[in-house]
Amino acid sequence: MQVLIVGTVAFDAIETPYGKTDKIIGGAATYIGLSASALLEKTKLVSVVGDDFPQETIDLMTAKGMDVEGLQIRKGEKTFFWSGKYHRDMNSRDTLDTQLNVLADFDPIVPESSKNADVLMLGNLMPSVQQRVLDQMNQRPKLVVLDTMNFWMDNFMDDLTEALKSVDVLTINDEEARQLSGEYSLVKAAHKILEMGPSYLIIKKGEHGAMLFDRDNIFFAPAFPLADVLDPTGAGDSFAGGFVSYLAKHGEISWPAMKRAVAHATVMASFCVEKFGIERLLEITPAEMEERKLALAELTRM
Amino acid sequence: MQVLIVGTVAFDAIETPYGKTDKIIGGAATYIGLSASALLEKTKLVSVVGDDFPQETIDLMTAKGMDVEGLQIRKGEKTFFWSGKYHRDMNSRDTLDTQLNVLADFDPIVPESSKNADVLMLGNLMPSVQQRVLDQMNQRPKLVVLDTMNFWMDNFMDDLTEALKSVDVLTINDEEARQLSGEYSLVKAAHKILEMGPSYLIIKKGEHGAMLFDRDNIFFAPAFPLADVLDPTGAGDSFAGGFVSYLAKHGEISWPAMKRAVAHATVMASFCVEKFGIERLLEITPAEMEERKLALAELTRM
Repeated sequence: MQVLIVGTVAFDAIETPYGKTDKIIGGAATYIGLSASALLEKTKLVSVVGDDFPQETIDLMTAKGMDVEGLQIRKGEKTFFWSGKYHRDMNSRDTLDTQLNVLADFDPIVPESSKNADVLMLGNLMPSVQQRVLDQMNQRPKLVVLDTMNFWMDNFMDDLTEALKSVDVLTINDEEARQLSGEYSLVKAAHKILEMGPSYLIIKKGEHGAMLFDRDNIFFAPAFPLADVLDPTGAGDSFAGGFVSYLAKHGEISWPAMKRAVAHATVMASFCVEKFGIERLLEITPAEMEERKLALAELTRM
Repeated sequence: MQVLIVGTVAFDAIETPYGKTDKIIGGAATYIGLSASALLEKTKLVSVVGDDFPQETIDLMTAKGMDVEGLQIRKGEKTFFWSGKYHRDMNSRDTLDTQLNVLADFDPIVPESSKNADVLMLGNLMPSVQQRVLDQMNQRPKLVVLDTMNFWMDNFMDDLTEALKSVDVLTINDEEARQLSGEYSLVKAAHKILEMGPSYLIIKKGEHGAMLFDRDNIFFAPAFPLADVLDPTGAGDSFAGGFVSYLAKHGEISWPAMKRAVAHATVMASFCVEKFGIERLLEITPAEMEERKLALAELTRM
């Protein structure tokens, strides 16, 4: 199945208890695409950068199978920039700086060659932008996955609830699930959210794992236990990239396939956080991916 | 295998977002014993109360198979009292009042009939009291499990580290594991703690599940997903009671048995939190226990 990925391509500056970076490559679509490239030879990208974005990174993405025809490069403008500092628990962070730049008036244009994609991965972006991408597709994709965050719930809840009506899978974290539903219990929250549009809900709990819900079932995947987590940035996006790439590769949309996709997604997120930025995603070998999947399955075998 | 349970028998007054109780029955040994009684016909108890403690509760414990020969009833003195208020996340709480009363100078006396117990469950108590119980045993039990908390780490770390040298299994929560080891990563924390004495470590993470470690392996059991958690008091003790009773019933001390014991423990904790105090523990049927165990296994089946 062909996957179209929409999301930011960005610069990040990150501080964690283990170190600090200057401007490095980041962005939801970057992480999603690089994570997906572990399973898929080709993916399609819709995003926007300024002409300050390095051509060598675009070449790298292309080499990893990301078709950048839908990547707008805006002359004389600057790439989206985010800077943040993680607390010791790595589950919470402070945003130090956000410069929207090209993202401020981003109007996504889906190339003709991408309008028939089977899987649409809507990375974290303004909900109306996510909606505009969906509206450009020739037909509804077989699977639409949407990632979002509390910022859009705080400021664009109407747009978000509208977008959710067209979505198969929603991925959010536990606090966002509580905010979106108004329920503290995640079981109750999930049931309310599944009434809002999505057929499946993934609640990401960082080091505490991820839960997959449909109306009748719950699946839980623990986070892969790591001795060292250096930088959580992109973990959720690597998870999303792992999730859609697994489903696309196996061509099956079902509860059992979704469970296996969540397990693969968990493994991809675990690689991401072992180094700063996208670095670790670029090094993963098939052998270590397989090894970690087996270890994850063993972790909960009773 | 015969199980000896040591710990508090107490009065609690509890406030959660879902309600508030007057003085009700509580105490680590109470929860441990009632939880264990779901699998074991007989357990032994060492504890202390004042003569304000209701005889009908002692009768109830006896009816549940708890041998109360080692329960000291101190004339003219008052039972240990704890009062606390849980925050909305139910993982954190404020202690409103602690009246040690009979616990202030508790000198545990192990009856002759209990000195040959195979399994010794040392519920949360002052470490030197836990040690004094261990010292009274005729021979080292086949399995010694110790539960403790941050208060003893803050104030009696030397006694605690001394007691840990004689222990097979330590159960603590994630924050306590970090405090005890000085490591933030639970993987690193576990390895350090396993150098301090215990062969097995259980890290309890409340709604985020529990992890079992030995030197070579990790097992993870998610918490059973509940729509409603009314009162977390006693969850950790119900877990401990489930854990030791499973091992005692099956008579096997091994990694595979420990994993199954943690799963059973998880199920017992999930019952405990569904009502205030010990109420729900008194109602569990074998059928619903079995049903919940199967659902827990299904939750992580990939």
